[in-house]
Amino acid sequence: MENYNKLVEHYKTISNFSHLSSICGWDAAAMMPSGGNQARSEAMAQLSLHIHQLSTAPQLEEWFEKAQSDELSADQQASLAEMKRQWQLTTVVPEDLVKAKSLAGSKCEHAWRTQRGDNDWQGFCKNFEEVVNLSQQEAQIRGEQSGLTPYDAMLDIYEPGVNSEQLDNIFGDLISWLPELTQQVIEKQNAESVYVTNENYSTTEQNALGMEIMKLLEFDFNHGRLDISSHPFCGGVPQDVRITTRYDESDFVQSLMGIVHETGHARYEQGLPKQWAGLPVGQARSMGIHESQSLFFEMQLGRSAGFIKNLAPLAKNHFTGNDARVFEPGNLEKIYTRVQPGYIRVDADELTYPAHVILRYEIERDLMNGKISYKDIPELWDQKMKQYLGLSTEGNYKDGCMQDIHWTDGAFGYFPSYTLGAMYAAQFMAAMKKDVDVENALDSLELAPIFTWLSDNIWQKASRFTTGELVSQATGSQLNAACFRSHLENRYL
Amino acid sequence: MENYNKLVEHYKTISNFSHLSSICGWDAAAMMPSGGNQARSEAMAQLSLHIHQLSTAPQLEEWFEKAQSDELSADQQASLAEMKRQWQLTTVVPEDLVKAKSLAGSKCEHAWRTQRGDNDWQGFCKNFEEVVNLSQQEAQIRGEQSGLTPYDAMLDIYEPGVNSEQLDNIFGDLISWLPELTQQVIEKQNAESVYVTNENYSTTEQNALGMEIMKLLEFDFNHGRLDISSHPFCGGVPQDVRITTRYDESDFVQSLMGIVHETGHARYEQGLPKQWAGLPVGQARSMGIHESQSLFFEMQLGRSAGFIKNLAPLAKNHFTGNDARVFEPGNLEKIYTRVQPGYIRVDADELTYPAHVILRYEIERDLMNGKISYKDIPELWDQKMKQYLGLSTEGNYKDGCMQDIHWTDGAFGYFPSYTLGAMYAAQFMAAMKKDVDVENALDSLELAPIFTWLSDNIWQKASRFTTGELVSQATGSQLNAACFRSHLENRYL
Repeated sequence: MENYNKLVEHYKTISNFSHLSSICGWDAAAMMPSGGNQARSEAMAQLSLHIHQLSTAPQLEEWFEKAQSDELSADQQASLAEMKRQWQLTTVVPEDLVKAKSLAGSKCEHAWRTQRGDNDWQGFCKNFEEVVNLSQQEAQIRGEQSGLTPYDAMLDIYEPGVNSEQLDNIFGDLISWLPELTQQVIEKQNAESVYVTNENYSTTEQNALGMEIMKLLEFDFNHGRLDISSHPFCGGVPQDVRITTRYDESDFVQSLMGIVHETGHARYEQGLPKQWAGLPVGQARSMGIHESQSLFFEMQLGRSAGFIKNLAPLAKNHFTGNDARVFEPGNLEKIYTRVQPGYIRVDADELTYPAHVILRYEIERDLMNGKISYKDIPELWDQKMKQYLGLSTEGNYKDGCMQDIHWTDGAFGYFPSYTLGAMYAAQFMAAMKKDVDVENALDSLELAPIFTWLSDNIWQKASRFTTGELVSQATGSQLNAACFRSHLENRYL
Repeated sequence: MENYNKLVEHYKTISNFSHLSSICGWDAAAMMPSGGNQARSEAMAQLSLHIHQLSTAPQLEEWFEKAQSDELSADQQASLAEMKRQWQLTTVVPEDLVKAKSLAGSKCEHAWRTQRGDNDWQGFCKNFEEVVNLSQQEAQIRGEQSGLTPYDAMLDIYEPGVNSEQLDNIFGDLISWLPELTQQVIEKQNAESVYVTNENYSTTEQNALGMEIMKLLEFDFNHGRLDISSHPFCGGVPQDVRITTRYDESDFVQSLMGIVHETGHARYEQGLPKQWAGLPVGQARSMGIHESQSLFFEMQLGRSAGFIKNLAPLAKNHFTGNDARVFEPGNLEKIYTRVQPGYIRVDADELTYPAHVILRYEIERDLMNGKISYKDIPELWDQKMKQYLGLSTEGNYKDGCMQDIHWTDGAFGYFPSYTLGAMYAAQFMAAMKKDVDVENALDSLELAPIFTWLSDNIWQKASRFTTGELVSQATGSQLNAACFRSHLENRYL
């Protein structure tokens, strides 16, 4: 156990520094005034370098080698394997590259905050070129070590075990029936009437309703907060989860479901097992599984007829100055399941969302594999948007390739997780329904059995099993698109 | 220059980690939910240890030795001397003690937040005993190295060059005439009428007025924020200064001047020279000089007749639902210069404040020198409060020795800085008046010449000179109580 214990102590030290990084990262997005950026970027780059140095400390190789002879329980073996996976992912990247990428990402993200509003693609490129170059270098190095293509090597950071051959198949399948299904649904919905008004929904009231919904979804406010940032995210640490949203006073719909979405991420974090706190095995399994939880909350729970029936009177109570007819349950359900192709991924509905992801997946795959240049992005974006969603983004960078933060930060390989998450979520719901009377739980707002199932099958398992094991233990089969397809057909047709 | 440059790079690294510590410390006080405390304390202790390790790195001794032969400009020599002073202050304390004190302080402070409200001295002692023990160990170790008494060794951290012999003299002088002056002023004020009401001043309106006053005092909101915490402070970093206040809806007076006070601290930080950012020579000179700036803003500017004349209409504009007669300039000035002995130091007026400091000074001096136990504090507190201010705190811990955060964190030796600051501020004002038409600047609200004087004489000099040099360059003489006494007599008699 001696070497294993040394590793445990070492990874808890890393976790402490990561804690500071998470909180200061949240602060930079939600609290920091613009003039603080330069000093903060330098401090964060220093911390990032320090974490990298700890993660690649020379003694680790020996400890990992010797720990193989330690007598370990099955849990400890899984814990060791996760430490080793993180170590291997980290050791391959040189320190200078880590520091340079962190600085470039920070600079690019900071400038993006004003450039996006100005639709300033040329200005953005001045910083973005460096982010792409450094990310390509990273992908190249990772690919050489793992024997994967550069892009698959990046994918492996976020969604271990998934490669572009599989994604080409799954996403190819999805995009083969989704546009037609979408068209059918739009036609069906066009024949129905939805009551909407052109009113103002105050930020204060949206916030109060959001907080009430978070309580209902059992977000633990003793271990977390809700704030505002230009791009909503879930940050912080499991003991103190920081979620953010943004409010649009002309539209209560998006912000509220945004809060439900981030609450799903947050409950996963808050529900991770305390006995493994600070260890890789105690962390969320993967980005796809993380997204499965946020999408379970948003799509499987939040937009269900049963939940909306209960949401309706709450919304009516909060928006006292607004037209109450909007909040009739049947009408609210129609609003929340309205399908309409649009530019913005985070505002996209359940049916059109996968097209946004597949578009990005195809671009980032070819960008990391060196088949295209970052300069080609706007044209490819426009082309694919037209093809998948019938919309043009020509000259409209701010609603096109500058709309979100992922590439800005160099997080190439992350996007597929969103649609994998949607498919996992549908499969979890199908499995849960065998054990739990979900309809009744939603109808009566007694959500405890739902959260208990998620806690037992997902949250408490953290990274104890591989993604494949986790999914088949929870649902009895490996990931397949069938549950997602029947979920969509049931809800929308 | 080789060794000097190595030191510069090393101290900039330390500064980057201190940046993260400041922001996460601010977050813990102003943002963090209670349940986040344990994980945060561990992360902060780890960071504190890391900063301590950097500050005591073995190579520093050799670099400092060799740097003496580097060819350095006068500025660089001063920079080297400040790095060396910090190094010497730090190297003397063992790492284990640093970590233990940080953990104990964090734990004690966190529990204090609820214990204070509960008046729970016994519960507080369970954590406080450890903080005192570890601080006494620290004082002992520092004293042995420097040849000072344990308490003087602690004083030296915050107010270098000042010792308890001097303080016994200065504070002995002050306390010899202050109670009588206070009595005279109270009698004079009793004969005057002040118009006050029993109204509610909303937090929102207090906050809006506070923000307007901060803008007027040229707080740079691009490099800072105002938030709420239970104990007001000025934190963050020079590029991103975080000040906090607390609001009492039954009283707009304290929160507003609290904001003016913290704005003084903030402008000193925001005004430090950029060319020395991240280096010890570029930091604020001492706690006493820091306090001189906050008290200059609060007492010399904020409570002056000229400033209040201009504040009055602003207050009237913000508190639209409140009785406007309160805000008549003459009346507002009376409110802001009202003298009344009270329990709470941070709420104390200018005349009674020094008694609070002298009381704490006498207790902490004897506590660190081992002449009394922490258990004796409530009785001594009660005794001295009766003697200096005519008030008893028997059984009232929350308004007595549990009222503030300094000892909770183990910051023994800090309190004298407050009254030294008040004396420096009065001396700076007297000197400034030789160069600047202060009356006219306040009257016309054209404050730029005042800020220029402070910037030239204090802010831009950072730690380039010793406190003694700084004060005599700015005022033409060493610190003496004469300016403070005549300031008080002019204002109050």
